Amino acid sequence: MINKLISKIRKTNAPIVVGLDPMMKYVPEHIQKAAFSEFGETLEGAAEAIWQFNRGIVDAVCDLVPAVKPQIAMYEQFGIPGLTAFKKTVEYCKQKDLVVIGDVKRGDIGSTSEAYAVGHLGKVQVGGRSYYGLDEDFATVNPYLGSDGVKPFLKVCSEEKKGIFVLVKTSNPSSGELQDRLVKGTAEEGGEDRPLYEIVGRQVAAWGEQCMPSEGSYSYVGAVVGATYPEQGRILRKLMPNTFILVPGYGAQGGKGADLVHFFNEDGLGAIINSSRGIIAAYQQEQYSHFGGEGYADASREAVLAMREDIAAALDGRG
Amino acid sequence: MINKLISKIRKTNAPIVVGLDPMMKYVPEHIQKAAFSEFGETLEGAAEAIWQFNRGIVDAVCDLVPAVKPQIAMYEQFGIPGLTAFKKTVEYCKQKDLVVIGDVKRGDIGSTSEAYAVGHLGKVQVGGRSYYGLDEDFATVNPYLGSDGVKPFLKVCSEEKKGIFVLVKTSNPSSGELQDRLVKGTAEEGGEDRPLYEIVGRQVAAWGEQCMPSEGSYSYVGAVVGATYPEQGRILRKLMPNTFILVPGYGAQGGKGADLVHFFNEDGLGAIINSSRGIIAAYQQEQYSHFGGEGYADASREAVLAMREDIAAALDGRG
Repeated sequence: MINKLISKIRKTNAPIVVGLDPMMKYVPEHIQKAAFSEFGETLEGAAEAIWQFNRGIVDAVCDLVPAVKPQIAMYEQFGIPGLTAFKKTVEYCKQKDLVVIGDVKRGDIGSTSEAYAVGHLGKVQVGGRSYYGLDEDFATVNPYLGSDGVKPFLKVCSEEKKGIFVLVKTSNPSSGELQDRLVKGTAEEGGEDRPLYEIVGRQVAAWGEQCMPSEGSYSYVGAVVGATYPEQGRILRKLMPNTFILVPGYGAQGGKGADLVHFFNEDGLGAIINSSRGIIAAYQQEQYSHFGGEGYADASREAVLAMREDIAAALDGRG
Repeated sequence: MINKLISKIRKTNAPIVVGLDPMMKYVPEHIQKAAFSEFGETLEGAAEAIWQFNRGIVDAVCDLVPAVKPQIAMYEQFGIPGLTAFKKTVEYCKQKDLVVIGDVKRGDIGSTSEAYAVGHLGKVQVGGRSYYGLDEDFATVNPYLGSDGVKPFLKVCSEEKKGIFVLVKTSNPSSGELQDRLVKGTAEEGGEDRPLYEIVGRQVAAWGEQCMPSEGSYSYVGAVVGATYPEQGRILRKLMPNTFILVPGYGAQGGKGADLVHFFNEDGLGAIINSSRGIIAAYQQEQYSHFGGEGYADASREAVLAMREDIAAALDGRG
């Protein structure tokens, strides 16, 4: 799946993933109205609204981008109907040949992580049969529990040819509270003190060494590093040369095109930039407001084109 | 809800939470058979089997224990039908007046954690109405993203009178890979180097200070500390005097009664011990094998009684 992601990035010339994180306040009135008139102001109505909203965006951008990243929390908040909309969204995106990164940030003790891995990326056994649960192509994983919590994902990824992105340095303002703490180096590590995100980054690189589709390629164990921390991105890029970096925080969270160059390798690959609000709610921004709610999907398409240009210009500019 | 938990612990004299983590291999044959004959060997069949399995256990132990802790991964692996069984289990346990701790280990950037908090503990807005999503009483939360990822939970907890347990030192073998790393102390902290779990523990205590139902009581911001690490439990108990500790890892994971005393305060409170496999799959252990699969729920009841005695003996023994 990492190879499919890379080949789609090459084909679209867009290292972009669209974050399908539909909050109700982003959903245009006409879609809300239609959904509520069918299902009432219920969880089912909300789920229908976000699903229809997603579908419009996916139809409008699927030829431009390699991947989407639905954030499961935005669906989980609407209970079972919301999770059903998540599943429908994943299925629809896969039909459109998009790579689907489930932003689920799961991670637990071994036997529990195994269940998450099976549920999101693999097949679960039921009697003599087996079934896919939510069936994303990639999942994001939280490293706080150590390798026990990550290895079950690697096993399923190897069987299913899928992948993960492990949280290393997240894009939010408080990410440094733990992730930037300076950790005493062990003799094995050369004794130097390093921030926690570097410790995690090194581990991601080490896991990745066992998870290469072919020698010298990118591994299917990626990392999450926020666009809002370009300096750390530069350091981590060097520490994890064969790791694909999923970069959230572009646009609405404050990350700019010029900040992104540090996340890419010399080959122009190695990173994929996420934008959620900036694309899916583009019609609510002044520069795309002429599209109006009815034209929200076209506004999203324009925003993708602008983002593609912004990134290309930044990469060209690095000489 | 923390006060309800405490009053139920006092009433039952059992600081015990039953982990409702139903793997298919724990579900007795007669339950699997009945479910599969109704729904086939499908995700719906599996979901029905784990729901019926849970119901039997809940009926058998609900007068003995204050709380249950369903691990959502074990349901999520069966996709939407599995999550529907999770919701049914939560609802049923609440009908039986059990406190429900959703072991969901969620945590994300601010706006996303808000959606998780709303989905698991609070109400989501749909047009002019609002609805509970999964509606647990407590949720477990991962701290890797820092306070941005935790504060939205505190807000919802304060509104809904619910609570969280933040992962501090988890029970699994590799938990030390990050959690035990020695972190350089800042001047503000007195300059001393401390393991990461202490940094997180201090933060949990600090969040808790803002989250007390009444002065000097236990806060509704709890901590997860594994029974498998009694020495760390002792340290954390002192660091977080007003924090309730959820202690996984008893029984099947290797934690023993004598290890548990360190997690309790002098008042005999301050900790609640989880056992999952040891209770729900008791009939598969030699000592309860005479119950057989048909008597699995009675075996679970016996295992709870034995666990209650083990803990009471350990607490008595500490003098």
